[in-house]
Order: sequence, then structure tokens, then C-alpha cells
Amino acid sequence: MGDNRPRRIDVALIHHPVVNRCGEIIGSAVTNLDLHDLARAGRTYGVEACWIVTPYEDQQELAGQIVRHWTEGYGGTVNPDRKEALSLLRVRSDLQEVMAEATEKWGVRPLVFATCARLQENTRGYGEVRDLLEQGQPLLLLFGTAWGLAPEVLSGVDGTLPPLRGPGEFNHLPVRSAVAIILDRLLAPAEKR
Amino acid sequence: MGDNRPRRIDVALIHHPVVNRCGEIIGSAVTNLDLHDLARAGRTYGVEACWIVTPYEDQQELAGQIVRHWTEGYGGTVNPDRKEALSLLRVRSDLQEVMAEATEKWGVRPLVFATCARLQENTRGYGEVRDLLEQGQPLLLLFGTAWGLAPEVLSGVDGTLPPLRGPGEFNHLPVRSAVAIILDRLLAPAEKR
Repeated sequence: MGDNRPRRIDVALIHHPVVNRCGEIIGSAVTNLDLHDLARAGRTYGVEACWIVTPYEDQQELAGQIVRHWTEGYGGTVNPDRKEALSLLRVRSDLQEVMAEATEKWGVRPLVFATCARLQENTRGYGEVRDLLEQGQPLLLLFGTAWGLAPEVLSGVDGTLPPLRGPGEFNHLPVRSAVAIILDRLLAPAEKR
Repeated sequence: MGDNRPRRIDVALIHHPVVNRCGEIIGSAVTNLDLHDLARAGRTYGVEACWIVTPYEDQQELAGQIVRHWTEGYGGTVNPDRKEALSLLRVRSDLQEVMAEATEKWGVRPLVFATCARLQENTRGYGEVRDLLEQGQPLLLLFGTAWGLAPEVLSGVDGTLPPLRGPGEFNHLPVRSAVAIILDRLLAPAEKR
């Protein structure tokens, strides 16, 4: 059922609160390429909105300038595909703001799933989350910058996706790559794989 | 059979010959983040070597400096995980050089597969290529920067992987994202998915 219905999924890239390599709570800087790669993967896989979450006003301004260059400014005129992708980006201060807007547009609170490079107790498999999306369940998927989402975020979500692992133990993928792989696992149409 | 045997796979990131948005043959510039993201995804998924292919000596020097900063210099002392990843990178002038070295290390010429955002006549599915790797077949996987591999490269390979597509028609993923997704499709252990 519902296999051709658009999935209701948003992605949020969290810049605060995240942890540094020592596990301390920090806020990270917005990077240009993260925004582009997130938007392009999101647009490819049918994500509705990509939320860029940072509490810092100067970082919000920077992110907003990048988005406007491609959606309203010169960038979009020379590269319309990039305009189409970056129009998914929305800059917000915190997760509460994102949840309020996502709940309003969908008319129901979305399930919130975290991603993490370490296995969490509330893990739900990719196949299970894929099924939830296929059944029409709205989903907000959180990615952390730096060394990942802070414990206070991880403890407040409805579930966590399994860590991405290859054949070995190395698990230091860029968040850009993790976004691309996880959207592919959850959203690539079976007939196009 | 052979499911726990390490896969014999190398990846090459081609900076020449590739095409620009008009389909003209160009050489592209090496970018720092492509090298990092390629190496980190390669290391995660058990790739043996990531070849950085550019004929331009100044670009080879730049790529070499980046690699040495992380493998021999200061970078590796503060971030050993990054050192482990970037040690996969090998800078070479052209595909012939890569083929000669790959053939020598494996003792047999690898199959060469291209990746392309447009469907090619010699397409082989992800499952089929996954099986080849599982059976011990050595494989060299080519990714093009800019607007993709030149026709002369595409016409000379043993096969091409299907384009990555989501539910819609948008297909403008960064090469960084394509590398991550394709390695995940070919190399993620079934029991860890």
C-alpha cells in the first residue's frame, strides 16, 4: 500500500548541542559544503525540508546568505539545479522551533529519529523505519555535526537508526556521507536500485 | 562462499578527462574535501586504495601535500582516525598508471566499472557487482568529478553501475555523496545493515 505516495520526511542538521572529541557540549560552525551536500541529497531522495539548526545569530546570517545566493541571487541563475536543491534549506534556532513548524505543516507531531555512530538502546532498523515512512508516518531525522548529537538530544528522541558500519571497525564518516547513505537506505525506490 | 574474505576493490577519482556542463572535455581542480570524504568512506567500507587521478603537476603536488599533512605531518598526530583514512590515497597521472599498479598488486587485471548519472548501455546492477566482489573478483571503480567521466572513459570500461535515483527525476548528487552511497550498496555487510 501507499508505495507511490510521497514520503513525509524532514532532515535536521544540528550545530548545537553537539559534542566535541572529548564529549563536551559545544556549538559547531556552519560549513558551506554541508549545506550544499545536505540539500542535494535531500532533493534527490524526496525530503520535504532540510532544517539547519544553530542558535548563533552570526551563523544563522551566514547560512541565510548562502541559501539566498542560490535561491534568489546570482547562483540560481547560472545553476538552476542547485537552486532547486538549496530551496529545501530552512535556518532555525533550535529543535523546538523545527518541531513546532513540522507539526504544524503535517497536522501531527512527527516521529523524531536520531542518527549516531554508536549503537543506542532505542535502535530501530532501517527496514522498520522504511516501512513507517511507506505507511505515511511523518518523520524528522536528526544528524549531528562535530562528534555527533549531544546526549540530551539522543535521550529525547523516539528512536535511533543503527550506526553505519562497513566490514571493519572504522566508523568516522563525514556527516555529509552519512546523510547520503541513510537517505538512500530509507528512500531509494526498490525498482530503481 | 567467501563472504568473510576481504573484497578486492579500489576506487579512482578522475579529474581528467571529465566533462563540463556543456559536455566539453576538461580537467577539474582537486578539492580538499573530496579527498577527505573519499578516504573516509573508502576506509569505512574496506576499499584497498583510493586513486586520485590528475595529469596536472601542480594539482598532484597540492593533493600530495594534503595527504602528507595527515599521514606524516601534524594532522595525523591530532586526529589518528583521519590519518588511517587518508593513508588510502594515492596520487597518479592517469588511468593507465592506476591500472598497471592495480594489476600488479592483484596479479590479475581488475574489472573496471564506471559510475554515471545517466543510464549507459553496459549497465550491470548493484547486486550483480556485489556478487562479483564476493566471489573474489578484483574491481576498480571510477568516479568522475565536474559533470562526470568523459565519453572516452565510459566507452572503455567493462561495465557501468546504474545511476543513483530517488523517487523523482533530480539527479545532481555531489561525487562525494555518490561515492558514499555506492560503497554502501556494494560493501555494507548484510548483517550490519
